[in-house]
Amino acid sequence: MKPFLDQDFLLHTRAAQRLYHEYAALMPVIDYHNHLPPQQIAEDHCFDNLTQIWLYGDHYKWRAMRTHGISEEYCTGSASDWEKFEKWAETVPYTLRNPLYHWTHLELRRYFGIEELLNAETAKSVYEQAGEMLRKPEYSVRNLLRNMKVRYLCTTDDPTDSLEWHRMLAADATVGFKVLPTYRPDKAMAVENPAAFNDWTDKLAGVANTTINHYDDFLTALKNRHDFFAANGCGQSDHGLEYICAAEYTHQEIVAIFAKVRGGEALDTREILKIKSALLYEFALWDCEKGWVQQFHLGALRNNNSRAMRLLGPDTGWDSIGDFPQGQALARFLDRLDTEDRLAKTILYNLNPADNELMATMIGNFNDGSVAGKVQFGSAWWFLDQKDGMEKQINALSNMGMLSHFVGMLTDSRSFLSYPRHEYFRRILCNLFGQEIENGELPDQIEWIGELIGNICYRNAEQYFGFTKYS
Amino acid sequence: MKPFLDQDFLLHTRAAQRLYHEYAALMPVIDYHNHLPPQQIAEDHCFDNLTQIWLYGDHYKWRAMRTHGISEEYCTGSASDWEKFEKWAETVPYTLRNPLYHWTHLELRRYFGIEELLNAETAKSVYEQAGEMLRKPEYSVRNLLRNMKVRYLCTTDDPTDSLEWHRMLAADATVGFKVLPTYRPDKAMAVENPAAFNDWTDKLAGVANTTINHYDDFLTALKNRHDFFAANGCGQSDHGLEYICAAEYTHQEIVAIFAKVRGGEALDTREILKIKSALLYEFALWDCEKGWVQQFHLGALRNNNSRAMRLLGPDTGWDSIGDFPQGQALARFLDRLDTEDRLAKTILYNLNPADNELMATMIGNFNDGSVAGKVQFGSAWWFLDQKDGMEKQINALSNMGMLSHFVGMLTDSRSFLSYPRHEYFRRILCNLFGQEIENGELPDQIEWIGELIGNICYRNAEQYFGFTKYS
Amino acid sequence: MKPFLDQDFLLHTRAAQRLYHEYAALMPVIDYHNHLPPQQIAEDHCFDNLTQIWLYGDHYKWRAMRTHGISEEYCTGSASDWEKFEKWAETVPYTLRNPLYHWTHLELRRYFGIEELLNAETAKSVYEQAGEMLRKPEYSVRNLLRNMKVRYLCTTDDPTDSLEWHRMLAADATVGFKVLPTYRPDKAMAVENPAAFNDWTDKLAGVANTTINHYDDFLTALKNRHDFFAANGCGQSDHGLEYICAAEYTHQEIVAIFAKVRGGEALDTREILKIKSALLYEFALWDCEKGWVQQFHLGALRNNNSRAMRLLGPDTGWDSIGDFPQGQALARFLDRLDTEDRLAKTILYNLNPADNELMATMIGNFNDGSVAGKVQFGSAWWFLDQKDGMEKQINALSNMGMLSHFVGMLTDSRSFLSYPRHEYFRRILCNLFGQEIENGELPDQIEWIGELIGNICYRNAEQYFGFTKYS
Repeated sequence: MKPFLDQDFLLHTRAAQRLYHEYAALMPVIDYHNHLPPQQIAEDHCFDNLTQIWLYGDHYKWRAMRTHGISEEYCTGSASDWEKFEKWAETVPYTLRNPLYHWTHLELRRYFGIEELLNAETAKSVYEQAGEMLRKPEYSVRNLLRNMKVRYLCTTDDPTDSLEWHRMLAADATVGFKVLPTYRPDKAMAVENPAAFNDWTDKLAGVANTTINHYDDFLTALKNRHDFFAANGCGQSDHGLEYICAAEYTHQEIVAIFAKVRGGEALDTREILKIKSALLYEFALWDCEKGWVQQFHLGALRNNNSRAMRLLGPDTGWDSIGDFPQGQALARFLDRLDTEDRLAKTILYNLNPADNELMATMIGNFNDGSVAGKVQFGSAWWFLDQKDGMEKQINALSNMGMLSHFVGMLTDSRSFLSYPRHEYFRRILCNLFGQEIENGELPDQIEWIGELIGNICYRNAEQYFGFTKYS
Repeated sequence: MKPFLDQDFLLHTRAAQRLYHEYAALMPVIDYHNHLPPQQIAEDHCFDNLTQIWLYGDHYKWRAMRTHGISEEYCTGSASDWEKFEKWAETVPYTLRNPLYHWTHLELRRYFGIEELLNAETAKSVYEQAGEMLRKPEYSVRNLLRNMKVRYLCTTDDPTDSLEWHRMLAADATVGFKVLPTYRPDKAMAVENPAAFNDWTDKLAGVANTTINHYDDFLTALKNRHDFFAANGCGQSDHGLEYICAAEYTHQEIVAIFAKVRGGEALDTREILKIKSALLYEFALWDCEKGWVQQFHLGALRNNNSRAMRLLGPDTGWDSIGDFPQGQALARFLDRLDTEDRLAKTILYNLNPADNELMATMIGNFNDGSVAGKVQFGSAWWFLDQKDGMEKQINALSNMGMLSHFVGMLTDSRSFLSYPRHEYFRRILCNLFGQEIENGELPDQIEWIGELIGNICYRNAEQYFGFTKYS
Repeated sequence: MKPFLDQDFLLHTRAAQRLYHEYAALMPVIDYHNHLPPQQIAEDHCFDNLTQIWLYGDHYKWRAMRTHGISEEYCTGSASDWEKFEKWAETVPYTLRNPLYHWTHLELRRYFGIEELLNAETAKSVYEQAGEMLRKPEYSVRNLLRNMKVRYLCTTDDPTDSLEWHRMLAADATVGFKVLPTYRPDKAMAVENPAAFNDWTDKLAGVANTTINHYDDFLTALKNRHDFFAANGCGQSDHGLEYICAAEYTHQEIVAIFAKVRGGEALDTREILKIKSALLYEFALWDCEKGWVQQFHLGALRNNNSRAMRLLGPDTGWDSIGDFPQGQALARFLDRLDTEDRLAKTILYNLNPADNELMATMIGNFNDGSVAGKVQFGSAWWFLDQKDGMEKQINALSNMGMLSHFVGMLTDSRSFLSYPRHEYFRRILCNLFGQEIENGELPDQIEWIGELIGNICYRNAEQYFGFTKYS
């Protein structure tokens, strides 16, 4: 029996162990998509305790706690940090077979060297040990990131963001890794709610130093921010969508639809689809012009619990996997851009694993030989970010595309403690290769396969996102 | 080489064997959803031979026989019991890798101690041995259930049912296990066929001692039966649907739609969707009021062969897995109830495994901390009730929810010989845990994991369905 | 560590090895669906080099090369044969974990005895060795097929085809295997493009020696070619469709729709659906009358890259997996035929693996006992034609149907070097059985299971397609 979480965790063959320890583990980390707050990096924040760094923003953990029958008070509510931690600790032994169980213990080991299993009995001691460390400067967020060998990380930012923290970080020679923004204009497409849309549009007008009455003003302001992001090191955009919108429309129609929503009137389904189609296309053109990477996170069914939405807002653990049709509109969208030779490098992330094979084959339709791995099937995302989910994504990509050109893993996390997910991914990746070497399905070319693994873990992303210019 | 179907069947590690033999196998059985005829339990029926108990109502076996080229005469037709059995026995060796092969031999061993493999050569001897036993009182249906350690079983019953057999069973102190009804008002929603719907509505009016002219009469009568079921020990409802209906409607519209169908007129698609949406909502309210568990079996595409439907009726083996969109309406339905704080405990069963991850994440949207595991992703159902199907359901639930709060297995069967499916499930469950203990993906905590397994096999369901009140 | 691609490649248990070497490997090959050019068989063509036989028509390889960043010149363009081969050889080491890697090396070994791994360094020597052999008469296409033990092969042919090469082959006593045509009237349903449709219809009128003004003329001409195909040994049809069309229509409507498109006018979506529904039904009737096998390849989303479509035409590597709803229309189509007792033997192939279980259960709805395995779930197709894809198809069929009646593998290939895919399938099949024998999930009945495997690899197809009449 293999001990839990030992050095060969998830590495079930000798070949897998060699691939991981001799190749994957040596690579630094590029975290090209996450939701970390740049302010905390700029200020080199120190957290007071595990609850703050682990539980304040983590809807994965809240969902588990709620399913375990723990009331909201201990999740997002008014309980004390210690009380919240205690409830989480009680929940942990019930999360067996959920990735939370692995992540929790990996994070305790990798950041704090704590090898105890977390549960009601060990809660106090773990909380105190980790808290003591966290309060030391060695555990500031920059040091946490440095310890994980992070070289580049890309946050996710609203077009109205001032990027002040990113600018501060760019000017600070002591950081030791790059913190780059990502242009994520989801709110520019959130026309379902005219009031919120108009508030946001007013804010956009403010930061772009203009007024927005006409659709063309709107585009100009958005483009202005795109340029501003580019001037501040941004090289990628991101979009969170149920599905790609690629309806037919005319500029005139969009002008009218924009005027309607800007006037505070609700749009109908057809109008919403049209204006989203138009905006997605415009964003894609700018990304291509600037040589950016565009990313699409597709398939989430969000904010399903209205009561919780009202009380807690979005991103608090009430989202799930949707079953939207994805293929035809996605193909149409990419084809329109490709036809005009304005298709940027593109990463497609799907949330429903039933779409894995669709995605893994869709990318091939637009990989035209111009750039190796130009269109990518993104790493297993959100609910899929676990061993089964990653294996399925890696296998679909292997079978239907070229794993060797994959840009690999990202945390997509709001927490500074999530970086062992890169390790988790690497172990799983090495295990898949190792198993096939061991059983004769791959040749025994550890060195060559090690090189491919190094590419997938670091070098492909460095190249793809143009980070080589920094090195 | 491991012998076929030995004591460690499906248990491929030492840890799995310990978990099964020391924990899972010791638990009694709750079969909270099946299609057993309560009359036969009340009368403590004895079957004459294997054909009667095994082949009379089993469309799984009929489908296999037909695919094997055996004519209807030997499935549902006029052939003698022995002839039917002989044809089935001939078919068995061709069912290798289908769950029927495992089930057949498990059932022969567990109920009759017959270890021979069933085939054309052994047919006669198996038929005679088992028949001889079946005709003895030790093989009455109650004894069959007792031998399988059944403590609670829930049948599936039409609202017009008199529940006379359930009442007789409740009054009989010698039974030794609880037989409880389930309120399944599918026929109240079967408005596609006005003639059949009106016949059924007349019958409902009769048992509810009322007349039904108006939609409100209809609801009152249905509610009357809901109360009656509750008074007879019922604590759960069930619904068989292609997908959840959650269209917008007004009471006035439903009144008109009901009047139309009650007048014998065909409804259009929109009307059908509206009235089903209305009824589902009403049923859900009553379930919540009474603290019942509501169950939804979603995704079957039924009665695909009209010729067979005409000749043999429903549930004779002509159904398949559909690919209906499930996510949005399901979320809307549950959210409406949750918003009003009237969401009952709920189990969602899906038939298309492509929806596993959707379901496993949907439940999290309504697990709000009020009850542990309040909304459940139900056990692998029907075509999915086999090793792969169960593993996929268990893994999806593990990865995206909390397996530890799962209410576990049910037979969903029409046969008294199906109870080894609980054993089958338990072995598969233990094997998944055992394998991960063995390879270091779970800690070596046999005792703790054994407790969780005991919960999944018995205690969670006992708690969830409120059966603790009987003990 | 097992050597790569040794004699026990993919056979991970002793039982699997015995099943393969003692049973599967001994069976000859029926390739009942491929895209080989009959002319080259009739002329017993010799290829000059590996590029011609391997790369000229293989969009799988082109897709990989493009993803690897190789420009079109080296895929379908004007580069020399050697230059193209060199680029392919450079790509090969990057295809690890894609089936191309296995196929490439299997094909080099089985046809040429070349055991070197292909890469930039070995490219020259492999090209020269294989080229030298290919230019010898022993490597003519007939000899390639004979060496692979091919007994029957079915090409895919347009109804306007003269079948001259098939007739020449039928008359040639020296061939040693049967080459049979398949009636594939996709162009008769390609009404989306009126100009191309009318050109094709004119051509059809020409070969059928008639004029086509009215829908009934169209049907008569198509039926005339169906008869002609039958007279030339054809016993199967095939259709490539996004999904089965089974809309309601009247003859009168179809007559009008046909007149419209024949007049060069574009049809709307509803009209297209109706005329396709009508045509599919007619083809199905003829297939049933003649006792043919009808095949449906469902779910491809084709020609997604307009730029490539314009430059290179269809079938050049720009297709992907779609997510079309499949269940309801498919059930309706098959049911209509079944109701009239005019359902031919039918094979359903799906491209989206998310539909595997739908397909595996759909077939059971129409397996009525008249013919063993009458409706089949076809072998893993196109993108799914790899180890994972095959295992999933075999497992879905096993769990929900009867694997023992499966008609097994086909190449679906345009290349004479693709026959090791039969070996690949057989190894995977034997491995699945072997593993379950070894771990006690199947009884240790090598002889019986070997017989079932022989059926799946050869005898079932021979029976199903009526090839026994030739032996």
